[in-house]
Amino acid sequence: MLIDGKDTDQIAADDRGLLYGDGLFETIAVHDGVPQLWLQHMARLQRDCARLGIIPPAVELLYSEAHHLCAGQSRAVLKIIITRGSGGRGYRAPEPAAPRRVLSLHPWPAYPDHYPEQGIRVRLCAMRLGSNPRLAGIKHLNRLEQVLARAEWDDPGIGEGLLLDGEGRLVEGTMSNVFLVRDGRLQTPLLDACGVAGVMRECVLELARQGGIACEVTRLGLDDVAAADEMFVCNSVIGLWPVCQFEQQPLAAGPLTRRLQQAIGALTHA
Amino acid sequence: MLIDGKDTDQIAADDRGLLYGDGLFETIAVHDGVPQLWLQHMARLQRDCARLGIIPPAVELLYSEAHHLCAGQSRAVLKIIITRGSGGRGYRAPEPAAPRRVLSLHPWPAYPDHYPEQGIRVRLCAMRLGSNPRLAGIKHLNRLEQVLARAEWDDPGIGEGLLLDGEGRLVEGTMSNVFLVRDGRLQTPLLDACGVAGVMRECVLELARQGGIACEVTRLGLDDVAAADEMFVCNSVIGLWPVCQFEQQPLAAGPLTRRLQQAIGALTHA
Repeated sequence: MLIDGKDTDQIAADDRGLLYGDGLFETIAVHDGVPQLWLQHMARLQRDCARLGIIPPAVELLYSEAHHLCAGQSRAVLKIIITRGSGGRGYRAPEPAAPRRVLSLHPWPAYPDHYPEQGIRVRLCAMRLGSNPRLAGIKHLNRLEQVLARAEWDDPGIGEGLLLDGEGRLVEGTMSNVFLVRDGRLQTPLLDACGVAGVMRECVLELARQGGIACEVTRLGLDDVAAADEMFVCNSVIGLWPVCQFEQQPLAAGPLTRRLQQAIGALTHA
Repeated sequence: MLIDGKDTDQIAADDRGLLYGDGLFETIAVHDGVPQLWLQHMARLQRDCARLGIIPPAVELLYSEAHHLCAGQSRAVLKIIITRGSGGRGYRAPEPAAPRRVLSLHPWPAYPDHYPEQGIRVRLCAMRLGSNPRLAGIKHLNRLEQVLARAEWDDPGIGEGLLLDGEGRLVEGTMSNVFLVRDGRLQTPLLDACGVAGVMRECVLELARQGGIACEVTRLGLDDVAAADEMFVCNSVIGLWPVCQFEQQPLAAGPLTRRLQQAIGALTHA
């Protein structure tokens, strides 16, 4: 773990990341020592920092530290946290703030091998996401909703839980974005009120554009899920997992899901 | 600063308080070495921990550490953070979790002396609070909304900003709860969808009950503010501040505000 470039696993206890969740993070797959989709993660990190008014560290610095940490790792997860740094009286941030960076390396998670092929079972979470357009899409550190949603089940046979907003609209999974396939068209929720705009979600949207696959980024509800032919979830670490069952609804990975899954595999294990 | 009883200002960088805002806090006024409204703060801390599924530290332990830190302090602020502790893979918490406690002492804030007597000017924040009944009322560590709201102004003549929810209902100030007085009755927002149920808010409600003052805890909007005779904000550190101006609306501290202000002064400087 590197905190502001220093090899330590301790952080100042007055860091605003701890005090207020005043920061954001990226979770990045590492293959053969190389952080995958680096440019996309850096673009999102910079965009999110701008939205929170945090001055991001130089990308060259992050690149150098990331590669130092990842060297020799065949398969791992790199997490980058950027906080607004220490201090300030109350919610008001110090002027100027001194943002802090935390880079940490983690073992590749032990998800069941059959998830990519056979798909996962997915539940509907009771927790509803609050809406705030100012925070929508940002991968910020205020993640209590996800923590409480993930605490709703401990059945190891369930691979993910879907979250609705307060109006019952589909938003995302606890740790993933969600796509539907209906009549050969892709659909994914518009994230203008809540949710995290994942890097892998962007990749899927870009692959669809390149592949001439019709895609709607729109408001979706449980009726759309019920009408879907296929469903999948995605994030930077898992890639793409088909959904084989949502609550009592059986689903199967169809041609569009498999096509995108292959394309993502090619993209992230290059 | 004491972290799990140890005199240090560094915390494990894998603490879930940093990673996800997975925890809560109390901000407590200290007078003559004594943390004020201790029982009320401990009751709220235990209630909030239960709602988040965090096992709180023993109150006797917190009491002992708090008194150790506060000894000899004529006037200070004690902050207690409880997090779910380190670890877990992703949002899922470790079983069992090992909650962590961070007690820190801070200088008494340098608010202008005339605030309690002459009142403060208050603005309306553009930021709207997201609604989530599961988190409503809890003083949790997910405070980006407050950080961004407080960043909306730097005019030192403005003492507080009021926050509405997504439906335009009045909720609270960025760091305080808000009360209106109308026709001799107290009104304060119902906090069932968002907001922090402050300890001082509870004290005001209790003082009103004891004093036979009619009080409505209800849904309020800007029309209620416009119709108000008096307005005040409160928290554990500032006590009660009258509002002398909200945006362009002049207000004056009337008899009910002064009566409650005196009662709170007697309660907290005992």
